[in-house]
Order: sequence, then C-alpha cells, then structure tokens
Amino acid sequence: ALQIFSIGSEEDAYSFTFHEAKLQSVLAKVPEDCKVSVVSVVGAFRTGKSFVLTFFLRFLNLLEENPSLVEEDSQWYNQLESVGNKGFEWKAGSERNTTGIWMWNQPFFLNGGKLAVLLVDTQGMFDHETTMTLTTCIFGLGCLMSSYMIYNVDKRIQEDNLQHLALFTEYAKMAMASNETDRDKKPFQLVEFLVRDWQHFDDEEESAVKMAESMQAYLNDEVMQMREANDLKETREQINDCFQKVSCFGLCHPGTKVTKKKYDGAVKDIEPEFLKLLDLYCRRIFSDKLTPKIIHGQELGPQEFFNYTKAYAAMFADGAKFPEAGTMLDATASANNTNARDEALKIYKEVMDRIAGPSCSSFVNVQQLEDDHKHNVTQALEIFDARANFGSSKNIQKSRRDVQIAIDEQFVSYRKLNEQRNPLFGME
Amino acid sequence: ALQIFSIGSEEDAYSFTFHEAKLQSVLAKVPEDCKVSVVSVVGAFRTGKSFVLTFFLRFLNLLEENPSLVEEDSQWYNQLESVGNKGFEWKAGSERNTTGIWMWNQPFFLNGGKLAVLLVDTQGMFDHETTMTLTTCIFGLGCLMSSYMIYNVDKRIQEDNLQHLALFTEYAKMAMASNETDRDKKPFQLVEFLVRDWQHFDDEEESAVKMAESMQAYLNDEVMQMREANDLKETREQINDCFQKVSCFGLCHPGTKVTKKKYDGAVKDIEPEFLKLLDLYCRRIFSDKLTPKIIHGQELGPQEFFNYTKAYAAMFADGAKFPEAGTMLDATASANNTNARDEALKIYKEVMDRIAGPSCSSFVNVQQLEDDHKHNVTQALEIFDARANFGSSKNIQKSRRDVQIAIDEQFVSYRKLNEQRNPLFGME
Ligand SMILES: Nc1nc2c(ncn2[C@@H]2O[C@H](COP(=O)(O)OP(=O)(O)O)[C@@H](O)[C@H]2O)c(=O)[nH]1
Ligand SMILES: Nc1nc2c(ncn2[C@@H]2O[C@H](COP(=O)(O)OP(=O)(O)O)[C@@H](O)[C@H]2O)c(=O)[nH]1
Ligand SMILES: [Mg+2]
Ligand SMILES: [Mg+2]
Repeated sequence: ALQIFSIGSEEDAYSFTFHEAKLQSVLAKVPEDCKVSVVSVVGAFRTGKSFVLTFFLRFLNLLEENPSLVEEDSQWYNQLESVGNKGFEWKAGSERNTTGIWMWNQPFFLNGGKLAVLLVDTQGMFDHETTMTLTTCIFGLGCLMSSYMIYNVDKRIQEDNLQHLALFTEYAKMAMASNETDRDKKPFQLVEFLVRDWQHFDDEEESAVKMAESMQAYLNDEVMQMREANDLKETREQINDCFQKVSCFGLCHPGTKVTKKKYDGAVKDIEPEFLKLLDLYCRRIFSDKLTPKIIHGQELGPQEFFNYTKAYAAMFADGAKFPEAGTMLDATASANNTNARDEALKIYKEVMDRIAGPSCSSFVNVQQLEDDHKHNVTQALEIFDARANFGSSKNIQKSRRDVQIAIDEQFVSYRKLNEQRNPLFGME
Repeated sequence: ALQIFSIGSEEDAYSFTFHEAKLQSVLAKVPEDCKVSVVSVVGAFRTGKSFVLTFFLRFLNLLEENPSLVEEDSQWYNQLESVGNKGFEWKAGSERNTTGIWMWNQPFFLNGGKLAVLLVDTQGMFDHETTMTLTTCIFGLGCLMSSYMIYNVDKRIQEDNLQHLALFTEYAKMAMASNETDRDKKPFQLVEFLVRDWQHFDDEEESAVKMAESMQAYLNDEVMQMREANDLKETREQINDCFQKVSCFGLCHPGTKVTKKKYDGAVKDIEPEFLKLLDLYCRRIFSDKLTPKIIHGQELGPQEFFNYTKAYAAMFADGAKFPEAGTMLDATASANNTNARDEALKIYKEVMDRIAGPSCSSFVNVQQLEDDHKHNVTQALEIFDARANFGSSKNIQKSRRDVQIAIDEQFVSYRKLNEQRNPLFGME
C-alpha cells in the first residue's frame, strides 16, 4: 500500500503531508473514461481496520483472477492459507500501527471495467499521539475522498461514536462547501457502521443474510431513532444531513486465536462464523451497486478525483479557515469563560448606561462617575468570578483580564459622553 | 441493590431524583464510629460493569462468612455454581440496562470492622437515551461519592476515554470546590482504569501478578506519558490534578460462552484466565490498603458521607451553576460563532473609533457618519460570514443578529459623541 498522506515533519510532529505523486501513480492506472469509487475504513486505533481491508484485497484479487471462484457459497477464503500481511499492514499490540492515510497501489475494476475501486486505510482515531486537529484532518480527508466510508466501531455503536462522526463530518462539509455554495445538499454518499465483535446475533444457526438484516434494524430502531433531547436530536440530524445513506453491518468475534500476539493470519484459526459474515460483506460492498465517487453531483474520473483531493488537502494543510479542534473540556471551559465575560460586560454596561450612557442628558460629577465606575467594575468582576470556575485557572485569568480591558475601553466612552454634558463644556 | 439515584420524571425524561431514604437505609447499617469506603464502577454502557460488581459481591459475601475461604489460591469462585443475577443486575442484549446509580443494600466490613465498604453501580455512559447533561450528573456524582472509582473501558484506553474523564471530573471538582475554597488540591482519591477483553497479555502461562504489572506499565509508559501537544498535555494534567492516584488493571476476554444471550452466569463457562485475574483483582481492591472516603482532608463516617452526598445531589439537581454540557460539534460551533462575532465587532469598533470614537475631536457630517456606519456594518458582517460557517445555520443566524444588535448599540454612542462635537451643539 502507498502512504498518500503522512504525518509529522521535522518542524512539526503534528502536521501532515500530501504525497501527490503516490496518489497520481495509482490513478495513472485508471483509464480516463473510467469512474473511481473509493472504499475506506475509518475508526479508533487497533480495532481491526487494516485486517478487514486486507480481506477485501484478497477477495478483489481472487475476483479479478477468476470471477467464478468467488461465487456464492464458494468459500473462497478457504483457498487462502493465510490472510497474509502483504496488504494493509495489520498487527497485534497495543500501540498504533497505521499512521496517516494509505491507498492500495492497484485499482480493482468492476462493472465490466467501467468502475475503478480504490481501497483506503486510515490512521486510527484516539491513539495517544494524535492531536484533535490532526484527527480532524485525517477523518475529514477520509470522508471527502470516500464514496463508501466504513466507520469501524468496537462491539456496539455508542453515542460518542455518533458525536464524533457528527463533529468530524462538519469539518469535511466545511472544506467542501467553501468551494461551492451548496451547504444545504447532502455532501457525502454513504457511511456504514461496521460493528466488530458484535455479541448479540440471535442464534448461531442463523443465516448471514438474516444477521445482516438484524444489524440494519439495530441501527434504525435503536441507534438512529430520533430523540427529543436537543443534543441527541442534533447529532442525528447532522449525520442524516451529511450522508445520503447511513447503514450498518456486524461481524462477530473472529475467535481468540486471532487476537493473540503470535497470530500470523492463518485462515483456519478464524471462526467460521466470522468468515461467513465477512464473505457476505465483501459481496455486498463490491457488487453492481457500488457507485462512483460523486462530488457536487458529478461522478468523478481519475483526474477530477485527483484535483479535488489536492484541493481539499491544501485546505486542511492551510487550516486557517477551520475552527480549532480541541477537547470537550477545553471547549466547555472556553464557552463558560466567554459567557461569564459577556455577562459581566453586559451588567457593567447596563448600569453605566443608566448613569452616563448615550441617552442620558444630565452631567454627573466627574469624581462621582469615577466612583460609580469603580463600584460597577467590582460588581461585574464578582459576577464573572461566580460563573467562571470551570477549567484551567490560567484561561480563567485571561478572560478576567479581557473583561477589565473591555470595561476600561467602555469607560473612556462614558467619560467622554459625560464630559460633553458638562454645562461648562468648551468654556474652559 | 437499591437505586439511590433514578432518572426521568413525568415532567422531564432527562432529570434525576435522589432517593435519600434508600441511601439512609444502607448507611443506617454502618456504626457511627466506622468510616465508609465507596467502590464504584463507571464507564460506557454494556461493558460488563454490573457483571464484575456482582463478582465483587460474591467475593465479599464469602469473605464475610469465612475469611479463610478466600485465601490465596483457594479458587473460591469454584465454590460458586453461578455468578447469579441476584446482585447488580447484568444481562446480555444491546440495550442499556442499569439506569441511574445503584448501591448494594448491605455494607461489608473490613479491617476488623472499622471500615464499611459500599458498592456502587452506575448507568453506562453513551447509550442513546441519555443527554450529555445527565451523563455529567451521573458521572459527576459517581466521582464525588467514590473513594475507589473504577473506570471500565473496552479493550484499550483510548484518548477519548481520557478526554471524557477529564471533562466529567471537572464538573465533579466544581461541585466540590464551590463548597469550600480548595480548587487547587487534588480532590479525588483514585481512578483505576479497568480494561476489559485486553488482548495483549504477553504469554498465557504468565502469572496474574505479572499481568497486573504489565497493565500498570501500559498506563504509565504508553497512555499517561506526558506529550507535547496542548490537547494531549492538558488532558493528562487535568487527570493528574484531580486524582491522587491513577492506576490500571486488565481482564482478558471471559470466553465466548459468557457473551451469549442465553448465558446464565455459570462459573464453569468462564475462561479460567479471567477468573484468575478477577480473583487477584478482588484481593487487590478489598485489602488492608482500602482507604475510607476522604473529602476536604477528612475521613468520612456514615453521617458525613450522607450529608455530602445530599449536598452534591442538590447542586447537580439545581444545575444552574454548571456550564452547559453539550456535544463536541455544538461546543466547537458555538466557539466558532462567538469568535466570528467578536472579530466582526472588533473590526467595526476599530474603524469607527478612528472616525468618531471618544478620542476624536472633529465633528463628522451626520450623513457622512451614517454612510461610514453602513459601510462598516457591511464589512463587519462579511468578516462574520467568512468565519461563521461551521455548525447549524440556525445558530449562525442567531449570532449574526447578535452582531447587528451590538453594532447598533455601539453606533448610538458614536452618533452621540459626534453630535456633541458639532460646533453648533447646544446652539439650536
Ligand atoms: N477482537 C478483534 N480483534 C481483531 C479483529 N480483527 C482483527 N483483530 C486483531 O486486532 C489487532 C489489530 O488489527 P489491525 O487491523 O492492525 O487494527 P487497526 O489498527 O484498526 O488497523 C490484530 O491483532 C488483529 O488480529 C476483530 O474483528 N475483533
Ligand atoms: N466481552 C465481554 N463481555 C462481558 C464481560 N463481562 C460481562 N460481559 C457480558 O456483557 C454483557 C453486559 O454485561 P453487564 O454487566 O450487564 O454490562 P453493563 O451495562 O456495563 O453493566 C453481558 O452479556 C455479560 O455476560 C467481559 O469482560 N467481556
Ligand atoms: Mg491499521
Ligand atoms: Mg449495568
């Protein structure tokens, strides 16, 4: 596989680099009149993303060699001795493995050669080395590039998985919309939750098709069901507004042999159930129904895909236009500080407006005005202190100084307005 | 078990209620001169929290009956036929089970009867029914009540687990500090990550003690290792500032029989490895080293514990003082809108200050000032529009109106200041 985005440079460990020539080298293998389809896997680190992509590779390899080999019930996977590690590198261990974004160096052709399928692997989210900004870039680019985005989750879909999807997609949407003016259309095609180690299949004897149906029901009836509360509602709206289709598939646990450190990829060590489901999954994805990547209503050929990717990469590399991505604690504390600041300022202005605002008409003794100001500053800061007690004290102190500066600025106006109401004004 | 906090009322499905009498009924069983210790389990829903707590119960029951039964290598768990479900209710299925906060209705006595141990089970975070505000309350109260807080995580500790811990703990800290003025001391005693289904134990033959050591190394060397980037750094600082001790334990997968829907708790169906680790874990927690709950430097007896819990419950029920808990998307979008608003206002003020601010001295033709104002409003709104393009358009529009209102208010001042510089002022 080729690393089309890498992370870290000598100057900045948290930056990323687009390797244009590598992407170009894959796209050069796609005829001009062919459309491209991009199947990618995103999700937390160490959740078997690269492992499943390597299976896709094996499937597509066999499909290319001899389509009949992978017909239904062919159990094509039994022809492989090992999943092998000459695909997207997967491995055991607790540390992150894949970094940046990778693409398989060969396109696969479907639909009688009219559709070129590109496989994309991404760095896992939430390892302990990656900043939120970088996570945003990787997920955002993954989303922008994919026509079929698989969001790999562990065991179940949690509300925080939905929240992260909603957040990161907004960055991708922003990159897309800033090019054109269609913020309102659904910008992305498909997100599919792939639940790993799903523990709730009804009965082991059930057919894989039935199992797949039960996962879609889980998504629709349990997970994405509309709720009343604002945060639950808005998260669902955001996902539905960003993707034309939201779907779900589940795989059971591949068996304890697979999760061992020394596991080398032997197919015979994988639970038959897992293989059966994976077979169904491969057929489902790489079928006639696979669509080309569409941006702004246009099906993309290799050159257009390259151009868009390059433009988006530049946008994320620039970063200037994007809101800063931080942690929840940071964002909540900032919002709290801002609210405390605005509230304190508002109170100060309200009281001072009554004393010496633009609609006052009588002059106030200069010393008196000074005293009123001081008194109100104290009050305003008390209000600030009562409210701004969440998060880092450094940031709280900074906001407090902002309040004082803004108040001082404001006071200059009050003094001036008052001065001009002095009956002796201009008479000195 | 008794539900000491329940969620949802007729009027508000997302509220919570403190059941004072239930907590009182458990604490009534603790002699006045006894200190209390609270062991709780928190974490995402459906991750085996209640299951492990039920094991703790069984262990403590046996320990009470006959301490020698649970000596090392006694394999006390083989005396149980089944884990049973008459503890903290655990069950299979994808939907949330435990809601609110539960406490075992009997204290257990350790250290020759001087320490009363209370077991607490909490509702899982991130099911699809619970708002962020409610999650904050449950986690916050769990944290405030615990002397030994077990943070149950699936498979590995992810950065988002740390981020959530950092966020929710800040709410708990705020509740605590608003009572007294010790924001700077470490308010909480212990958080212990309990990693379930850990896949990376080095070798199956290894002793449980060695395995436990490897988990602590994983926490220290991989997870909590200090990093340079701001968001990674601040998350770690927050956790270290809130807890006197941060530790880690791991359990392997309990075996595929345990995760089946029809599993009834039979001990013989559980992997021996899992039982061995769990045994070590029970001994480790419920040892001489277990400390009483300490708040503001004081070891708590039953009455004090009750009083604090009641006070904290009232604070969370009131909620007024706490910053609103929302999703990341919401918080990021709000911050972005606020920044866009502040920036637009700043530009407007800068330009208008030069034309008609408090330090200007020459009068500007009234029509001219009006034109300048209009021109600058347009510019300011353009700046706002360029920046405020993230998140819900409804909120963007609201912030935009706020800009216009603030500008209009400001303009009244400029007009007045200017008016008074009119050489004909007061002469009409
Ligand atoms: N529990 C579990 N482990 C898996 C699964 N698929 C692969 N693994 C194992 O998980 C580890 C990490 O796999 P990898 O594909 O490198 O994860 P990635 O970081 O998400 O790309 C390897 O040890 C795999 O053998 C799965 O479905 N369930
Ligand atoms: N994979 C796995 N499943 C577990 C473990 N412990 C319990 N379970 C199963 O997980 C399901 C949920 O357990 P429960 O204790 O009710 O989860 P809770 O919602 O976190 O309280 C049950 O089917 C248990 O049999 C574990 O360590 N690993
Ligand atoms: Mg990988
Ligand atoms: Mg439970």
